[in-house]
Amino acid sequence: MAFITALEILDAANTKPLYNIKVIMDFQEEMGSPHLPATVASQSDLFAADMLFVMDGTRHLSNLPTLTYGARGIATAKLKVFGAHYPLHSGQYGNFAPNPVFQAAKLISGLKDDTGRVTIPGFYDGITITKKEKALLQKVPENLDSIRKRLGIAVQDQVGVNYQESLQYPSLNIRGLRSGWVGDKVRTIIPSEVLTEIDMRLVPESDGRRLMELLKTYIKENGYHLVDSIPSDKERAIYPKLASFTYKIGSKPFRTPMDSPIGNFLNKALHKVFGNNIVNMRTTGGSQPMAPFINTLNVPAVSIRIPNPDNNIHSPNENIRLGNFLEGIITCLAILDEPIPK
Amino acid sequence: MAFITALEILDAANTKPLYNIKVIMDFQEEMGSPHLPATVASQSDLFAADMLFVMDGTRHLSNLPTLTYGARGIATAKLKVFGAHYPLHSGQYGNFAPNPVFQAAKLISGLKDDTGRVTIPGFYDGITITKKEKALLQKVPENLDSIRKRLGIAVQDQVGVNYQESLQYPSLNIRGLRSGWVGDKVRTIIPSEVLTEIDMRLVPESDGRRLMELLKTYIKENGYHLVDSIPSDKERAIYPKLASFTYKIGSKPFRTPMDSPIGNFLNKALHKVFGNNIVNMRTTGGSQPMAPFINTLNVPAVSIRIPNPDNNIHSPNENIRLGNFLEGIITCLAILDEPIPK
Repeated sequence: MAFITALEILDAANTKPLYNIKVIMDFQEEMGSPHLPATVASQSDLFAADMLFVMDGTRHLSNLPTLTYGARGIATAKLKVFGAHYPLHSGQYGNFAPNPVFQAAKLISGLKDDTGRVTIPGFYDGITITKKEKALLQKVPENLDSIRKRLGIAVQDQVGVNYQESLQYPSLNIRGLRSGWVGDKVRTIIPSEVLTEIDMRLVPESDGRRLMELLKTYIKENGYHLVDSIPSDKERAIYPKLASFTYKIGSKPFRTPMDSPIGNFLNKALHKVFGNNIVNMRTTGGSQPMAPFINTLNVPAVSIRIPNPDNNIHSPNENIRLGNFLEGIITCLAILDEPIPK
Repeated sequence: MAFITALEILDAANTKPLYNIKVIMDFQEEMGSPHLPATVASQSDLFAADMLFVMDGTRHLSNLPTLTYGARGIATAKLKVFGAHYPLHSGQYGNFAPNPVFQAAKLISGLKDDTGRVTIPGFYDGITITKKEKALLQKVPENLDSIRKRLGIAVQDQVGVNYQESLQYPSLNIRGLRSGWVGDKVRTIIPSEVLTEIDMRLVPESDGRRLMELLKTYIKENGYHLVDSIPSDKERAIYPKLASFTYKIGSKPFRTPMDSPIGNFLNKALHKVFGNNIVNMRTTGGSQPMAPFINTLNVPAVSIRIPNPDNNIHSPNENIRLGNFLEGIITCLAILDEPIPK
């Protein structure tokens, strides 16, 4: 809406942008943009361009105008740990029927050490951050105290030495967990299964399929027999630990060099209205469906961030601060007004 | 309904029971009968009796007519483990904001060993089972293979040497677990909290308050700062591990001696219609609100079981087999027809 408003303002002022524009609206981003890669591949002429600007995702925590040059990819998985074949009265079977919550807890607790690092061997393989890259990461104006305070945590996970560095690595997250019933629906039973929803955020150096297979191997090495859907009576009689594990690879990670023509162009445009109050981030932690454009069409892409960082993205009460919306319009005008270098 | 039908049959046959009957209907049993203890205490004259028969709970797994002489008590608890103060985008904060699911998993997995035994020191204190009691437990016609097959498990927890013995100990169960969202409501976030619903089944030798305090101590010893409801910003800034823990003591455990007059009376009554096909169980695993009668009024109590053991008690699709209902009517008639010994 900030971009469309900027176009309307140009139109009202009888002004035209300094270059041609193609607009792509992707309404399936939160579904992982299932049709985008095939569409980009089959319509490459239509999508041909010199640069790609992505209007998605929130600004850096400082809420300064933000450019991000890469995004993590995503892969998701469902892990189900099975107990008895139906929920059991906890009095009649407590001390006899194993509770899959305890089994799942052991499995989950073995995935990370106390500093939040994934303990599966090979999970972080292939990632090196050079001195120059570390310096760029440190230029981002943020301090750990204020981030911790914002999140309401006393200690952060120790995957990177600072927040920006932590985003340069793949992550392993349990986004949802359910077993039995809680709250006003609580039932005094031994649950029959534990459902775990998992996501991994990927960086260009880490292949999602490889990481998911590592996780699958970890589950098997912990003594689990994996079934496709629901265990059969025969499998129940044989295997003390039963689980199902399925995964999907979502959008791919990408990274555009920070000292590229598109980076210089956007910095010059934003400098006109924001001076030096601009944040350049090597990568954002989230995923964006930009990889098809970069990988298939070879178009350099940078993400222009507008919404406030505390906008509850992907959560209930997602919002945008009005000041950010207005600065977003100014941002778009500054870019539309910037001459393309010869 | 089996009992009322038996009374109707007697009535239609112009026959009267051989003794006076008082009927107590407790419609709050699944809520833990909150008003019963005070009512029994204040109306002791009204409730005075020689024996108490309880029509509650399922038959033994053999589905033979069953008498149980005791029940475990119950205590329940809620444990909440806190992460960041709201759900966070898993890409933006994955590798930085701690996920409370991993913390809760470590806490839960430390509660039991791989055989299902609670590892908290003192949890099983005070319980001894004599040789004579072991013999009575072994008289119950059951075998582990068929119970495992019925439940769909390959290996049972090893708290007792057999199913009956496992019921003589207190149990610790996680009846419900929830964090974030799953299934068609899944959101790619780092959950802000993990809710754990806990129940303990108690035996006469184990005090519920003592066991719950042991659990509370375990949580604290694992580094948790316990808050009353929601952590304050100040607590969030100080403590890396935050949780809330509250518990309630429900109905109390009880046990009536198996070789008592009430036991002999009921065995004699049931023998008339079922011969030796009767199961006498020292205790049932579930809880029953009988303790007030026994402890306050000193009335011996035995539970007469009617429903089939696979009736999904306390779970969806709770049911009764028609054959069990009909045998339940016969059971009640046999008892109503039995002369009280002088």
